[in-house]
Amino acid sequence: MTDATAQLLLDRCDELAAISSHPDYLERVHLSKEHRAANDLVAEWMREAGLSTWQDAAGNQCGRLEGREPGLPALLLGSHIDTVPDAGRYDGMLGVLLAIAVVGRIRDSGIELPFALEVVAFSDEEGTRFGTALIGSRALAGTWHDDWWNLTDKDGITLFEAFQDFGLDPARLPGAFRRPDDLVGYLEAHIEQGPYLEDADRRLAVVTSIAGARRFALTMTGKAGHAGGTPYDRRRDALVGASELVVEIERISKERGVIGTVGRLQAFPGGVNVIPGRVEFSLDLRAEFDEDRDESIRLITEAAHAIAERRGLGYHATEIYRADAVRCDLALQEAVAAGIRSTGDADPMAFWSRAGHDGMAVVAVTPIAMLFLRCKGGVSHHPDEAVKKADVAAAVDAYEATVRHLIESR
Amino acid sequence: MTDATAQLLLDRCDELAAISSHPDYLERVHLSKEHRAANDLVAEWMREAGLSTWQDAAGNQCGRLEGREPGLPALLLGSHIDTVPDAGRYDGMLGVLLAIAVVGRIRDSGIELPFALEVVAFSDEEGTRFGTALIGSRALAGTWHDDWWNLTDKDGITLFEAFQDFGLDPARLPGAFRRPDDLVGYLEAHIEQGPYLEDADRRLAVVTSIAGARRFALTMTGKAGHAGGTPYDRRRDALVGASELVVEIERISKERGVIGTVGRLQAFPGGVNVIPGRVEFSLDLRAEFDEDRDESIRLITEAAHAIAERRGLGYHATEIYRADAVRCDLALQEAVAAGIRSTGDADPMAFWSRAGHDGMAVVAVTPIAMLFLRCKGGVSHHPDEAVKKADVAAAVDAYEATVRHLIESR
Repeated sequence: MTDATAQLLLDRCDELAAISSHPDYLERVHLSKEHRAANDLVAEWMREAGLSTWQDAAGNQCGRLEGREPGLPALLLGSHIDTVPDAGRYDGMLGVLLAIAVVGRIRDSGIELPFALEVVAFSDEEGTRFGTALIGSRALAGTWHDDWWNLTDKDGITLFEAFQDFGLDPARLPGAFRRPDDLVGYLEAHIEQGPYLEDADRRLAVVTSIAGARRFALTMTGKAGHAGGTPYDRRRDALVGASELVVEIERISKERGVIGTVGRLQAFPGGVNVIPGRVEFSLDLRAEFDEDRDESIRLITEAAHAIAERRGLGYHATEIYRADAVRCDLALQEAVAAGIRSTGDADPMAFWSRAGHDGMAVVAVTPIAMLFLRCKGGVSHHPDEAVKKADVAAAVDAYEATVRHLIESR
Repeated sequence: MTDATAQLLLDRCDELAAISSHPDYLERVHLSKEHRAANDLVAEWMREAGLSTWQDAAGNQCGRLEGREPGLPALLLGSHIDTVPDAGRYDGMLGVLLAIAVVGRIRDSGIELPFALEVVAFSDEEGTRFGTALIGSRALAGTWHDDWWNLTDKDGITLFEAFQDFGLDPARLPGAFRRPDDLVGYLEAHIEQGPYLEDADRRLAVVTSIAGARRFALTMTGKAGHAGGTPYDRRRDALVGASELVVEIERISKERGVIGTVGRLQAFPGGVNVIPGRVEFSLDLRAEFDEDRDESIRLITEAAHAIAERRGLGYHATEIYRADAVRCDLALQEAVAAGIRSTGDADPMAFWSRAGHDGMAVVAVTPIAMLFLRCKGGVSHHPDEAVKKADVAAAVDAYEATVRHLIESR
């Protein structure tokens, strides 16, 4: 029966993956019409599992199964349904579908619940559209920043306008905030997005903490000029400067044991025969410990200024996202470990998440924990993202056992 | 009087600069509606100067003043009216306007012409829209490649479709080809786009040759992946590889005394938290001598393959443009020198052009020569492009004297 459930979840991942704003690849961003369609489909699956459903004031799709009496605090199970550009089909989505399946099974078992169970499909975790991640989960956690309303997407549409276009009333946003008293905790299942489980030939892991991350929008400014007519001693080529920094970011990150990525880079004005006068690029830096992360950023900033000075360039960095490292709750970690043990793995692996997750936001209002599921080659944020059906089946069982462990120990 | 002419030409440069596809900066590309408007305006100025006008089968705007009898071979005077993105207002345009002014003056003088005079405003020199430069002048020279019809712009419109949208019939293109028998030579006045005149405190120069150039579309291919989840030993980050190559291109070019520019670079898929799986970038390489250019390309290719191998990346280069270095005709050079001498500069500077020009195409059907005019700080392909009115006045006089020299020595 778990095998059939796993197949159903994989089929549903395919179904969700078909809801894309691009014909050739998967991209589904915050407050898009594809987001609307995905919310509708997820809500339908929630109702099939016996949950009552609603979309909250931030566009998060929610479903609830009441406990032994209505209005009890809820254990949240969730993940996100937005994607990066050219995404895989399991990052986020599989965690939502696993949560729905687990709540459906618990409901079918008729067990008495000491708390309510809620599933949340977060509207924005990746930050693809507005550059700032975790917009959906930060709304739920009440850690919203009003200056986000003015963030714009690539077409110049503000978050405020996008809310309205989606049918949401920005003034009602506080309605999405949850109070700690109304919550028991937050669990999230997610593909590992890294190679450690596969390398150890294991299926599931307990997450101990989530990496601290900071993201920056970087600009290197020089002077555009004719490619032929400008001798080297007069060039202020923003792209050669930015390229030197990209190489330095890798060197510093490796040396410090942190993870630095430049995911976006574009040279302007972009003529084949024009010296780039400006380069816009991004930096994503994450580490297990915030001090390592911050020290690396200091070294990178130092390197950037040295390059800019030597080349007569301007350098500017704007922080667009910051999340400190988050520890998973020990009691909830133990519940996840118990869940994994129930699937036959006597000594579950436990390690920190290099990737950010909605739990980083949710931890502001309730304790969190996560269950990792092996993915092929550690590949994520790429259409080759893949999971084994047997691993999904193990995840369903472990996740259900985790929730039962919490029910029983309450 | 020359001073008034210079002011008129500067005003006309401003008028042309207002015809842009962007409200904030100047961009006017091949076969756009702005191209149409610029052609119409230039044609009007040609008619005011007494020329009969037509648009040729490639969209080049032409004007002709017959010689002492109709149908004589023509001395062509010209330059281009397309621009790079965020362009200056003198590159190309000033050369067209100078040519019109010179022909108008010759006509007004009533001197008997042993050949016809024609002005050509080339439709495409920069190659901004379709990536391949000199499309207009190559059509005139009959060195057209039929595979260009399938080139696409950033919106996926082919050159073939763009011709039709502009009201041109691709089947009639051969009508734009000129035969050597119908031509006497080609002269072009152009801003220097380099600092050598300004450094020497001189206004005008004779061009001895035009640099050989080759352009490539480069692709570095790795594997996209989650920025957090992919450890360094598993990364195949296309952007770090491309960045190393950008730095190497500068190093090799400086070392070999050639000019290498990466003007375009973009990382894909472009998510802040996604390792770039592909980078598309450009290489423009030019040198006074073709052997230096080609040897540098060999070294760059070698460096690219070494980087790609070390990082597990793919590397691909497609040549999108190639022009061998072109010598200016000695007799025409002497006429240009005589023209400059007539303005009081007894010993005109003479040097090679680092930039490419329409003459590189036109030389296939007739001898060419060029007159360079000082520009501020050597800046070009940038809105700060600037010329002095007195230098424009000197250019009008020198250009007219050059044409008179050719008339008299015929």
